[in-house]
Amino acid sequence: MGANEQAVATALTRANSRLADGCTPLLKNHWYVAGLAADFTRELRERTFLGQSLVLYRTLAGQPVALLNRCPHRSFPLVHGSLEGDLLRCGYHGLTFRQDGSCGEIPAQATVPPGVCTRSFPVAERGPFVWIWMGDPAQADETAIPDTSWLVDPAWNHVSSYLELDANYVYLHENLLDLSHFTYLHPTTLGTPEYARTPFDVEVDGSRVRIKRFVKECDLPPIYAKTGIKGKISRRTESEFVSPAIHHASALMTDLQAGAGQRSDFTILITHFATPQTQDTTHYWFAFARDFALNDPQVDEYMRSSALTAFNEDRHALQEISRIYRSEPKAPETEIHIKSDKAGVAMRRIILNLAADEQG
Amino acid sequence: MGANEQAVATALTRANSRLADGCTPLLKNHWYVAGLAADFTRELRERTFLGQSLVLYRTLAGQPVALLNRCPHRSFPLVHGSLEGDLLRCGYHGLTFRQDGSCGEIPAQATVPPGVCTRSFPVAERGPFVWIWMGDPAQADETAIPDTSWLVDPAWNHVSSYLELDANYVYLHENLLDLSHFTYLHPTTLGTPEYARTPFDVEVDGSRVRIKRFVKECDLPPIYAKTGIKGKISRRTESEFVSPAIHHASALMTDLQAGAGQRSDFTILITHFATPQTQDTTHYWFAFARDFALNDPQVDEYMRSSALTAFNEDRHALQEISRIYRSEPKAPETEIHIKSDKAGVAMRRIILNLAADEQG
Amino acid sequence: MGANEQAVATALTRANSRLADGCTPLLKNHWYVAGLAADFTRELRERTFLGQSLVLYRTLAGQPVALLNRCPHRSFPLVHGSLEGDLLRCGYHGLTFRQDGSCGEIPAQATVPPGVCTRSFPVAERGPFVWIWMGDPAQADETAIPDTSWLVDPAWNHVSSYLELDANYVYLHENLLDLSHFTYLHPTTLGTPEYARTPFDVEVDGSRVRIKRFVKECDLPPIYAKTGIKGKISRRTESEFVSPAIHHASALMTDLQAGAGQRSDFTILITHFATPQTQDTTHYWFAFARDFALNDPQVDEYMRSSALTAFNEDRHALQEISRIYRSEPKAPETEIHIKSDKAGVAMRRIILNLAADEQG
Repeated sequence: MGANEQAVATALTRANSRLADGCTPLLKNHWYVAGLAADFTRELRERTFLGQSLVLYRTLAGQPVALLNRCPHRSFPLVHGSLEGDLLRCGYHGLTFRQDGSCGEIPAQATVPPGVCTRSFPVAERGPFVWIWMGDPAQADETAIPDTSWLVDPAWNHVSSYLELDANYVYLHENLLDLSHFTYLHPTTLGTPEYARTPFDVEVDGSRVRIKRFVKECDLPPIYAKTGIKGKISRRTESEFVSPAIHHASALMTDLQAGAGQRSDFTILITHFATPQTQDTTHYWFAFARDFALNDPQVDEYMRSSALTAFNEDRHALQEISRIYRSEPKAPETEIHIKSDKAGVAMRRIILNLAADEQG
Repeated sequence: MGANEQAVATALTRANSRLADGCTPLLKNHWYVAGLAADFTRELRERTFLGQSLVLYRTLAGQPVALLNRCPHRSFPLVHGSLEGDLLRCGYHGLTFRQDGSCGEIPAQATVPPGVCTRSFPVAERGPFVWIWMGDPAQADETAIPDTSWLVDPAWNHVSSYLELDANYVYLHENLLDLSHFTYLHPTTLGTPEYARTPFDVEVDGSRVRIKRFVKECDLPPIYAKTGIKGKISRRTESEFVSPAIHHASALMTDLQAGAGQRSDFTILITHFATPQTQDTTHYWFAFARDFALNDPQVDEYMRSSALTAFNEDRHALQEISRIYRSEPKAPETEIHIKSDKAGVAMRRIILNLAADEQG
Repeated sequence: MGANEQAVATALTRANSRLADGCTPLLKNHWYVAGLAADFTRELRERTFLGQSLVLYRTLAGQPVALLNRCPHRSFPLVHGSLEGDLLRCGYHGLTFRQDGSCGEIPAQATVPPGVCTRSFPVAERGPFVWIWMGDPAQADETAIPDTSWLVDPAWNHVSSYLELDANYVYLHENLLDLSHFTYLHPTTLGTPEYARTPFDVEVDGSRVRIKRFVKECDLPPIYAKTGIKGKISRRTESEFVSPAIHHASALMTDLQAGAGQRSDFTILITHFATPQTQDTTHYWFAFARDFALNDPQVDEYMRSSALTAFNEDRHALQEISRIYRSEPKAPETEIHIKSDKAGVAMRRIILNLAADEQG
């Protein structure tokens, strides 16, 4: 038994109670995606993050705003109010709030007592997405927002979409770190028959977890069928848990039959954004970027729809697993781990530690 | 700072834990409206009050009856039974019950053991409504039924309607004692722009709370547009929490441009009946009476539909607030109070005291 | 007061807390019907018994199989997998399971660690039904499966059907042991006016409870109207709680006007199969067998539809009672017992004792 087998055997017998699961407290001190930039407009919009209902809008100057969706007076959702310039006026008693959450006016009385406010959450726009900080505002450091620069780089094209997931976000991350399910759950989109058996490397780097796989020769996965790549390829994939909010995946496909002078390398970058909506539900955005077939709306449409098909298969699996967990609360504790879980198990231990740190 | 401002400041900082809220035990020893007189017929009807399912009907002699909707034998809802004269026969095993709840017959055996009965609740018909006493029967004193004599007085016309409210009844009373929201929640029905800022007086009289407002000159609120009153008016309103079951509001509108010999005073009496259905839901009946435009079905219809529009706005607000409370259970405790809450805060303190008395 | 009246009086005052009710732990160590034989096919089917989700199928050789519907790895429901011969392959990571629940393959690794399995439940086919044992496998004795031999005997014809019941199974058994409700709940199907008042005998025999009734002369119950029997009959009925899973009822109808040489005796055997789905819901199969009008599809159809009509009346009653129990949790404890409850009360005491034994 080699060192790796030994590690797997250890993982197999490790108590699940030391891993994050659907009951682990949600992590607040991270930047999460709050929505597309296009979701922040002059129309008030309600969205829930980490169990808190927020109201989202954009100032006249174009700045995205996220306030607690609750008037501090009688808890009426502010989303039913209206914007008067940059003031949000509550639709019940007419109190107004500035974008920092402070109260501007209480119509029924002459003055505003000190301290009347609703909570304002730090937000920052980065390319096509707006990020939000739900934790301690003093720790909100915009330089910690994960890099997604290729989403605004003209050398890349991307399509994006959204799914609401009726499952805890930890299980989404576990699914994303596990490439061995492609063959079985996604046979008509992402998987090819030999994929589940391919060896892989797992690297743990601080609070990041990376898994790498190289398939020397295989058929093109169906999802890339209409992108112009043809025939046999080699497939080098990397999948990384970057933070509780984001997972990066890349696939380098090399056309093994490309003639001299023909392009042989094609890269895909898939960015998955997981934002806990509640303990049991998750906002799931994803962006599918490519460095080939640029500016081709037909490829855009094909990849968007293929990605939605594939990720809906994951969604269905995760929701069905959650259904089993709800009916048999002890199920996750009795689960066994297999070799291909190594990355997911590492990630779940990291999330558990982060949660323990936040709970102090 | 005058005495009133001082009181408001005190209210603002008063701990919410000393006020009734949606968790305060429901009050049993009060007369509540059980329905329209027309709801009590020879057809059995199920309705829930204070969490208890009741079956309602009318005897051959015309007396309204309310029994616990549960056979004492195997708990089958009596509403699925049938009336045989004044006996209600259970649809499962055929036991019969008299209007006092006592059992008349058990078909499967020769005799009825002493004490077999379902609970009968005191009810009393008053004009267009039937009232019910859900508490200790020994304390059911019909002279304590609140006065609604104008609903049968030919000098007044009224229209009435019903809404089922997915919120605790305390919040409905708070909404009714608060006139400052008219401008914002009801701009197209009850409110006019200056209304929220008008000074008001609050009187606490035993377990009653009264709020008075006088607007010297204003436009006619939209709800009265088609009633024959025209132009600028003065508006004197009074709003009173009479009991946990009933709230009276009156509006005296004086036509400021009425010529000599022309009628200038027009009065509206609005009676709101709040009956807790469960801890979290409320039956809400209301009657809208006027001393003008008598016997005019078009005005009837206009007022009924305008009132429904306005009170549906309140219903939506209260239900949305309840939705926030359900998602953030500590929300009501952290609410701040403003000047216009004085009457509502007083009422919530009264209800809390009444509940403490009932809990002994 | 005779001995019987004395017993009834005792029953009336007996504390309900000594009787099984909807909260009594479900009984595991009994054979229950898992479905029709025809429900076990090469298509995977999900069904829940005693709160556990199972996947049902049939091997290539025709043997019915019931496995826990949960992969031991990541709890994905196995019903979303696929059959490869007699192996069930999980649809998430491709693990395979044999009909004994043992794991055949883990695609992502070379070997299967010892002990990896999902739970397999003993099942046995008996005529038109498959039975399942949800308890301790060591106690699964197929000779204990209740006799239903007449369902495969050519001297009898039967029709069967299924209802899903939103109520605990104890109340279904209580309903089945109580013949006095026929007159009131089933006036157009099973009942005749005098039925509720007919005397009856109750026998308790170990963990079985039997109730017998003889009506000397009555009209034919409507459900048998089109079976060829005519005029006045005598009706001898027996109803037996055989086990928590099964209730037998028989009716011998004798045609009182049959002439010499004419057939006068007609027998019906009704077998009721109650399988707890969850604590609060029940699978309810029934088979309606007769020894007359054999091989007559019109009588089949008439009896199936009449039985469904009658048993849907029971279903509605039991579900309405459960609704009352949910809204007033103390309702069952305050119920009074009447003479005709004697058999049901005995059965509920037996179930409570069986549950106490299983809980150890």
